Amino acid sequence: MTDLANDYTHTDAVLVNALYEDIGNGDITTSSIIPENHVSGAVLIAKDNFILAGLPFAERTFKLVNSGLRFQAIKRDGSRLRKGAVIAKISGDTRSLLMAERVALNMLQRLSGIATLTHRFVESVKGLTVKIVDTRKTTPGVRFFEKYAVRIGGGYNHRYGLFDGVLIKDNHIAVAGGLGKAVRLARLKAHHLLKIEVEVKDIMEVKEALSAGADIIMLDNMPVDGVNKAVNVIRRKRPDIIIEASGNIKLEDVSLIATAGVDLISIGALTHSAPAADISMKMAPSEKVESRE
Amino acid sequence: MTDLANDYTHTDAVLVNALYEDIGNGDITTSSIIPENHVSGAVLIAKDNFILAGLPFAERTFKLVNSGLRFQAIKRDGSRLRKGAVIAKISGDTRSLLMAERVALNMLQRLSGIATLTHRFVESVKGLTVKIVDTRKTTPGVRFFEKYAVRIGGGYNHRYGLFDGVLIKDNHIAVAGGLGKAVRLARLKAHHLLKIEVEVKDIMEVKEALSAGADIIMLDNMPVDGVNKAVNVIRRKRPDIIIEASGNIKLEDVSLIATAGVDLISIGALTHSAPAADISMKMAPSEKVESRE
Amino acid sequence: MTDLANDYTHTDAVLVNALYEDIGNGDITTSSIIPENHVSGAVLIAKDNFILAGLPFAERTFKLVNSGLRFQAIKRDGSRLRKGAVIAKISGDTRSLLMAERVALNMLQRLSGIATLTHRFVESVKGLTVKIVDTRKTTPGVRFFEKYAVRIGGGYNHRYGLFDGVLIKDNHIAVAGGLGKAVRLARLKAHHLLKIEVEVKDIMEVKEALSAGADIIMLDNMPVDGVNKAVNVIRRKRPDIIIEASGNIKLEDVSLIATAGVDLISIGALTHSAPAADISMKMAPSEKVESRE
Amino acid sequence: MTDLANDYTHTDAVLVNALYEDIGNGDITTSSIIPENHVSGAVLIAKDNFILAGLPFAERTFKLVNSGLRFQAIKRDGSRLRKGAVIAKISGDTRSLLMAERVALNMLQRLSGIATLTHRFVESVKGLTVKIVDTRKTTPGVRFFEKYAVRIGGGYNHRYGLFDGVLIKDNHIAVAGGLGKAVRLARLKAHHLLKIEVEVKDIMEVKEALSAGADIIMLDNMPVDGVNKAVNVIRRKRPDIIIEASGNIKLEDVSLIATAGVDLISIGALTHSAPAADISMKMAPSEKVESRE
Amino acid sequence: MTDLANDYTHTDAVLVNALYEDIGNGDITTSSIIPENHVSGAVLIAKDNFILAGLPFAERTFKLVNSGLRFQAIKRDGSRLRKGAVIAKISGDTRSLLMAERVALNMLQRLSGIATLTHRFVESVKGLTVKIVDTRKTTPGVRFFEKYAVRIGGGYNHRYGLFDGVLIKDNHIAVAGGLGKAVRLARLKAHHLLKIEVEVKDIMEVKEALSAGADIIMLDNMPVDGVNKAVNVIRRKRPDIIIEASGNIKLEDVSLIATAGVDLISIGALTHSAPAADISMKMAPSEKVESRE
Amino acid sequence: MTDLANDYTHTDAVLVNALYEDIGNGDITTSSIIPENHVSGAVLIAKDNFILAGLPFAERTFKLVNSGLRFQAIKRDGSRLRKGAVIAKISGDTRSLLMAERVALNMLQRLSGIATLTHRFVESVKGLTVKIVDTRKTTPGVRFFEKYAVRIGGGYNHRYGLFDGVLIKDNHIAVAGGLGKAVRLARLKAHHLLKIEVEVKDIMEVKEALSAGADIIMLDNMPVDGVNKAVNVIRRKRPDIIIEASGNIKLEDVSLIATAGVDLISIGALTHSAPAADISMKMAPSEKVESRE
Repeated sequence: MTDLANDYTHTDAVLVNALYEDIGNGDITTSSIIPENHVSGAVLIAKDNFILAGLPFAERTFKLVNSGLRFQAIKRDGSRLRKGAVIAKISGDTRSLLMAERVALNMLQRLSGIATLTHRFVESVKGLTVKIVDTRKTTPGVRFFEKYAVRIGGGYNHRYGLFDGVLIKDNHIAVAGGLGKAVRLARLKAHHLLKIEVEVKDIMEVKEALSAGADIIMLDNMPVDGVNKAVNVIRRKRPDIIIEASGNIKLEDVSLIATAGVDLISIGALTHSAPAADISMKMAPSEKVESRE
Repeated sequence: MTDLANDYTHTDAVLVNALYEDIGNGDITTSSIIPENHVSGAVLIAKDNFILAGLPFAERTFKLVNSGLRFQAIKRDGSRLRKGAVIAKISGDTRSLLMAERVALNMLQRLSGIATLTHRFVESVKGLTVKIVDTRKTTPGVRFFEKYAVRIGGGYNHRYGLFDGVLIKDNHIAVAGGLGKAVRLARLKAHHLLKIEVEVKDIMEVKEALSAGADIIMLDNMPVDGVNKAVNVIRRKRPDIIIEASGNIKLEDVSLIATAGVDLISIGALTHSAPAADISMKMAPSEKVESRE
Repeated sequence: MTDLANDYTHTDAVLVNALYEDIGNGDITTSSIIPENHVSGAVLIAKDNFILAGLPFAERTFKLVNSGLRFQAIKRDGSRLRKGAVIAKISGDTRSLLMAERVALNMLQRLSGIATLTHRFVESVKGLTVKIVDTRKTTPGVRFFEKYAVRIGGGYNHRYGLFDGVLIKDNHIAVAGGLGKAVRLARLKAHHLLKIEVEVKDIMEVKEALSAGADIIMLDNMPVDGVNKAVNVIRRKRPDIIIEASGNIKLEDVSLIATAGVDLISIGALTHSAPAADISMKMAPSEKVESRE
Repeated sequence: MTDLANDYTHTDAVLVNALYEDIGNGDITTSSIIPENHVSGAVLIAKDNFILAGLPFAERTFKLVNSGLRFQAIKRDGSRLRKGAVIAKISGDTRSLLMAERVALNMLQRLSGIATLTHRFVESVKGLTVKIVDTRKTTPGVRFFEKYAVRIGGGYNHRYGLFDGVLIKDNHIAVAGGLGKAVRLARLKAHHLLKIEVEVKDIMEVKEALSAGADIIMLDNMPVDGVNKAVNVIRRKRPDIIIEASGNIKLEDVSLIATAGVDLISIGALTHSAPAADISMKMAPSEKVESRE
Repeated sequence: MTDLANDYTHTDAVLVNALYEDIGNGDITTSSIIPENHVSGAVLIAKDNFILAGLPFAERTFKLVNSGLRFQAIKRDGSRLRKGAVIAKISGDTRSLLMAERVALNMLQRLSGIATLTHRFVESVKGLTVKIVDTRKTTPGVRFFEKYAVRIGGGYNHRYGLFDGVLIKDNHIAVAGGLGKAVRLARLKAHHLLKIEVEVKDIMEVKEALSAGADIIMLDNMPVDGVNKAVNVIRRKRPDIIIEASGNIKLEDVSLIATAGVDLISIGALTHSAPAADISMKMAPSEKVESRE
Repeated sequence: MTDLANDYTHTDAVLVNALYEDIGNGDITTSSIIPENHVSGAVLIAKDNFILAGLPFAERTFKLVNSGLRFQAIKRDGSRLRKGAVIAKISGDTRSLLMAERVALNMLQRLSGIATLTHRFVESVKGLTVKIVDTRKTTPGVRFFEKYAVRIGGGYNHRYGLFDGVLIKDNHIAVAGGLGKAVRLARLKAHHLLKIEVEVKDIMEVKEALSAGADIIMLDNMPVDGVNKAVNVIRRKRPDIIIEASGNIKLEDVSLIATAGVDLISIGALTHSAPAADISMKMAPSEKVESRE
């Protein structure tokens, strides 16, 4: 599991870093009280209803602390859990279980919270062809995990960062001296495998984006009827253009925006304001074993 | 600012890592469209009411991208902001402003969200001697920042991690074969500068903790009247013992718990479920300058 | 110059690593013979005709060894140099000059070699609209530098790596069970800001790519008349599609391929087989100074 | 293979770094199209005649991506390959094969190119006692690999860097105030296990080096008859001294220089101007398997 | 053994760093003379009488160089060894044995030296309840190992560093404006799980510390009768306070200080002035084997 | 001072690592009690007689914590100090002074201890041409510093590690199948800038080393008369060979060994058993300043 094929996203580094953040140079309580080589069993339990996300990372956290721990997943990412559900069973060295517990839970609770919120948005547009997508409004350092949780919740990912997509905003346009010029520059300088997305805030800009030859148009912070109108204008001229709606769209408004016919709705709150799911670890100490080796 | 005296908490490493996470090997849009050496001014603006937290980290983020950027703080951490308030003015190289923007805002929005929620809890127990404290339920990798935000919101910090405090929980007690034995082991093995805190769930355990000579007793998940009773039992025997209440305590219940006479109330939600504050950067492009040097 | 705005591509790390590779735990010869605080002047001189590339990295190498060295560029990247031309003047601490020399020259010689070869290809297609582009066939660890040298030579860059562009090859198609299915999967899973390029080897595959809706078609290892025919087929059906020719294209053949009307010609040799330019550092020792400070 | 005994030269770090350079945060094409757990077989094939070098590093690259891949070497480093020769067979997880391919090939092509060029020099002096040696003119960051390829081609290595040998050049002599003084200083300050080599450019300097007691004399950029004369002068006085010829020595001149009786001929071009060998990977997809585990 | 549960103290990093410090880019002697795949047996032998400490780290050093080496401990940490005693038997790849030897011995000799000196102090206070504790006067970078050796010798550890304990010294008191104020500030700002220790140099300060409510009092550099008096003053008022004696206490004085009734005596010399134990590795070469694999 | 020219030995990394080892995530005592922006003056004082070594590293430690601290050296490395001597004056931010103190002193005390012991050996052979040299028996991770201290004490350095010198020992000879064969292999495989040293234990081996053509002979663990005899045998045959005596040579025996006519005497105790010098920092708090900037 540490092969690069399984960790090109450096998730191990994030988990190890989080473990050191918590453990520092030792778990004083545990190493004072729990004897070496003591073994226990434990379960992860849902204390709420939610969509599970992050279980492979929880497992990986326990394994990074002690590769000898046994981790048996009972549920899987994407499962809808009811309060009381047993998520996984873990067993092995008691000290290791206690050292890994908090980091594993912190990750699992956060990701499950994100998947759960994403799922509520996805459910709101059920039956429509629109995709719910995330944004770059993620917690510093854990974007990979949070974008993963969005997918588990049924959402899709927008570009990962500034390096793998072109998205022209008002500031770029102002400096370039016009939307058309900005698109032209991006087309010239960015490599030929990238599309050009332009953020617009009204119908006039929509039209400029159309004549500039944008591949994707993002309708930013437009009211529902503005979105409706913009979609019509775009579809009439260039039915192949991808349309994205964005800007503080609430759960209660999302189906209305979707009905307007946009292809994508991007939601920052998925990753920046999802409350954590409630999960805990319960231990069932078993007897002492002779030796770890 | 990179001297170890200013960064023994590795905050620079976290910010730089977050910048690489977002920028990867380059901001394609910006480097295609914005000319080298173009300069602009920008402002950070509150789009909501909240308690500001994290401004020094936002400033540091801009400086890490380009130490030549000028950053003028208009507000300071702890300020209560109204929607529309200008938080800071930044100016300099336009490319750098755009590359730093998202990470600076992501950190600022998260920390302000935490400070704002903490402040609501603190306000709820105003006039009482109790302290609102955080937990280890933080986002992996950014605990230092989140604990900072709790202090800005008027809260206090519990131990940082497993390495700088002894907190004996049910699992430790079960393995040790009794609360008294667990306390004795911790007293023997942990160095003499550390106090011993014990988590208890009912009056029987309170009594055990008292006779074991615990320095601090944490009442975990007890109902309000349980807390009341426990406080009375403890105060009668050992008035010097520190009492902490813990376990999913809601904003609406916190003052009742506080009134029972505990010294500390710890709240996981401060760091795991605070919704982000809404902040944005607006730019005012200025004219081109001849050369960066 | 160490701000992230100037080093998001980690070039400093590569240069520092190369310096340690050469210097290890000290330049024994220099530290035995050259007194501390001795200062000298030196020049970088072309010993051949070539296109200069990499001067900012050579300067950065000297500065990383000793930020007090003065580096005055006489030529600039992209200049056509004649044998004997003075490229730059450097002065300061003699020990530092000698410790930085080899790494600075190694980088400069390699990048100038690449720029020179690229320039020869670019000259061969002068007047045509085709772009000469590089490939991922670069030296492990220095891709950023080599792709930079290609641009200096007048070429353009293809995608940087596997993470910022979709390029479907025969293996992908075989596993997917058909070109159409492969394009469909890429369209579904890759984020919406990415175009889909498909590599084809004959007219039949060209037609499949066209009906699958590829955004870009790469003609791989086709003879000149095959390229001609493919371009005609594509342009008739989809004039907007981008066409790339690839596969061991020699300097003597490049203009013929270009005339066929492709948009891009990619050449691996630019980065994997360019001979180094010949550059050396000559020193003119000046007198001893009292103190480095 | 990751034990320090196998990686004290940090080759794993170089390979992993190159893999991240190419893969970044994921191979979009492959992860979109190739299903998880799909397995394939592949072969590495020579598309040219050359001396093979770097196969263990190619194998290691595949294993670093996925330790479950099977790699069967058909040829070994040092083999003279004919176009079409099968170099190795690899099989296992298809995604991993595709992610490792480019880096493995880039290394293998470069090292085989160096071994092939070295071998041509070595062949040119066949039957003579002279050694062909490399220089410090290597690509930044991959010196270890390039010096390895020189050995595979039949050459020998000069000192690795500035830290494991004393080589006094004109600049050292000028600053020291004379060749004799420079040798004396080196003898005093460098530890007693190191010999002293001096670079000279004419007979006068040869004589100075002799009387200064140099252990090794490098004849730099001397014409053939100058080399002849210098060798005679040295051998007459100090038959035990090691003589090295250096400075842009071409393949066509090397045997003449060798015949003059030098012990070593050092050639920068071995590592800075060898064209890459042509190698490719061909895949033979096999059927899907149930599970990676 | 590389699981975080076994290496949260980063001991592996220290050992690997020390190995690189010694081996650099290769053991020239060994790789020139010892054939690949040659295997040998070796023993670690005591050349003096001492208390053994650090054997697991010596074993780990051999395993980090080559995980295929077999290491059989004959003695264990804490054993009292006589000159000539065999400590461990190691066998396997000869090159690896020779590359690991020096670092393994350097660590073992140093730690055994510390354990031996600690043990002499501990023996001097045998029968008394006082604990011998270490200080922060350790060798930069190896504190964890040195504090481990103290425990093996029968001593106890003081706080690990500045981050896990409060110890107020004269400088703190001077700046705070009084001992009482310093204690009050520490009580307010440090988290509630930490005790407050105060360093005092005479009876007046002892009294101030008592009334300030210090949890622990350190008698620094007091003569024996001063210690006696201070202990009496403290015990009379606050029998529960922990008393530590400190300051250049010699082996010949330690039992006198102990008899005064202090709880702890801290000794800097344990870690900063213990002479190394003498240990060597003797090899018994066995025959060549066909292949390492 | 962080330029590579000043830190190619990674000393900054060692110091920073040691600072983190001590400070962890904060100096709780200092940050609780000392106000931000408080400034003080301090002096480093000798509490013993010794040779000073390591002052530049002590200064660097303070500067790494806070580059704004002023450090004025009163003494310099190599000075013979008397008890009470003021070594340096430091002033600036009080918190930074306290955070740097322990690490700076730990390094200074250790290095001064080594220089002092070395100096005693050097004094013992005063007037003779022999050099006192160190060994590889250094503390893991701080070899560079310890070898520096040996030079300050008037000693010389042996090879740094296994990578920059050839030293053939009994194990190498046994495996090679004879001393002559071992020397021949080393001569063939090690690069031509390295001499060959051979360790011998009796006259028979001395003779073998002579006929094998060793450049340097190390007399290991020989009694004084053995050394005398060996020197005579060697000098008669090969006056140019370097002779080293080694093996637990005590201070009282060193002049006798030296008189025998060896060139070098290597002493492990210099670095593994030197007691620390006693040095302390005294502070003189000055008044509060308005702002750090």
